[in-house]
Amino acid sequence: MKYVNRFRVGPGSDVKLKDIDPGFKDRHKSHKEAVEEIARYQTKLRELQELLYADGRCSLLICLQGMDTGGKDGTINHILGAMNPQGCRVVGFKQPSVEEQAHDFLWRIHRAVPARGEVAIFNRSHYEDVLIVRVHDLVPKPVWSGRYDQINAFEKQLVEGNTHILKFYLHISKEEQLRRFRERLDEPAKQWKISASDYTERKFWDDYMAAYEDALSRCSTEHAPWFVIPSDHKWFRNLAIARIVVEHLEGLDMKFPPPAVDLERIRREYHAAKKT
Amino acid sequence: MKYVNRFRVGPGSDVKLKDIDPGFKDRHKSHKEAVEEIARYQTKLRELQELLYADGRCSLLICLQGMDTGGKDGTINHILGAMNPQGCRVVGFKQPSVEEQAHDFLWRIHRAVPARGEVAIFNRSHYEDVLIVRVHDLVPKPVWSGRYDQINAFEKQLVEGNTHILKFYLHISKEEQLRRFRERLDEPAKQWKISASDYTERKFWDDYMAAYEDALSRCSTEHAPWFVIPSDHKWFRNLAIARIVVEHLEGLDMKFPPPAVDLERIRREYHAAKKT
Repeated sequence: MKYVNRFRVGPGSDVKLKDIDPGFKDRHKSHKEAVEEIARYQTKLRELQELLYADGRCSLLICLQGMDTGGKDGTINHILGAMNPQGCRVVGFKQPSVEEQAHDFLWRIHRAVPARGEVAIFNRSHYEDVLIVRVHDLVPKPVWSGRYDQINAFEKQLVEGNTHILKFYLHISKEEQLRRFRERLDEPAKQWKISASDYTERKFWDDYMAAYEDALSRCSTEHAPWFVIPSDHKWFRNLAIARIVVEHLEGLDMKFPPPAVDLERIRREYHAAKKT
Repeated sequence: MKYVNRFRVGPGSDVKLKDIDPGFKDRHKSHKEAVEEIARYQTKLRELQELLYADGRCSLLICLQGMDTGGKDGTINHILGAMNPQGCRVVGFKQPSVEEQAHDFLWRIHRAVPARGEVAIFNRSHYEDVLIVRVHDLVPKPVWSGRYDQINAFEKQLVEGNTHILKFYLHISKEEQLRRFRERLDEPAKQWKISASDYTERKFWDDYMAAYEDALSRCSTEHAPWFVIPSDHKWFRNLAIARIVVEHLEGLDMKFPPPAVDLERIRREYHAAKKT
């Protein structure tokens, strides 16, 4: 079964995250066994990105969401590592700036969407406005609860303008998060990044899960699907996301444009130049 | 001798590009012999970029200039391939947009400079305004000839604001360019990119060399040096640029900030959490 179907949240379904195994690794027993397959998808990713750029008719928007340590940065390294950096941008959405807060929540998102031929990867996204904002009561409920429909309408408009949207929720267990936090504690080069809120946010784990379930259930649409990616194993997460992006792009009718010049004439000119 | 000195254009010197061998490859006889050294500098690049980000006090701006096929894209792939994509942006400067043309030539450049902790790589730069603009008479001579001093003053201000600027001219021979153009002709995935101007611009080769010599001579300053990189061998170009960036960054006094939290207290909390 294609991963693009296997991990997709069906439109209208009622996601229960506790029923989805974050440690799933399909038929592979270990990273080692999967190395070749991962490399194959990386190569395909690069070829397809080149084709997307050359074809120039559509763009690709990848949204990454997940709990702290879920693996957003690692995924970006893996996907970007496979792509030509000139056709691919990462945009991180942190706490909104004063200017951003003076606009509606989709304003800064819209400014950052990819142009035709481009890939953009969002490290967090407009979904924070129905996640952290909801968990911490940053706006009243009537405001955030109206956003699901607003997001669906916004994404639909982007898709109708030839932007393909793939949204990934990196699904880790609460235990795996603790393990990763502990790992960070022992890496001198990472200690400076540790903040007190890393740990205190864990108290809201169940609230976050409820908020994610609503976002996934209400905003996985035909035009802009959500995927729940088992992410306790970093290598499986990388494999699954690369494979889904590849499967999606392979389904598009993209082609290299014909040469804009008379290649034969240029060949003759080059040949003449070589002789002189 | 350090490459950061070896390939640097001394302030006030009078560059003669025909006296610089674009096929230079130092002590290495072949790419194969250099592979390990190249990998070592890539690893160092990544570590130093991480440190630049963590340290957060300065930024790095890398400008790439060169003739068509000179290897700007290849260099970007090599440097970016070594770095964390989230701390490093590529900005390509093509023909200015209508909005950009309505401003002074440094306006779009200033908007794109890296923030503290960031690396930005410019694929072409403000130097186009004393290169193509001069060669093709796009503005009167009094205008472009005033720009060398304007550029020096602008760059000085950036450097005084803790931006480090390294500028690389990718030096290839006219024959190597022709060879690369011919190569492209035979690659189906690249044919669509070939334009008639690729070849016709070769008629202006000598004018471009004169324009480059002036830019290199007049704008290689103590604060923002130019480097002339022998680039007929792609692997040597990659090695030399990576090594210069590494040598420059190693000369800075950067360090990881101390942890912002009480690591011991957090260790105890994590330990307690594991038991429950």
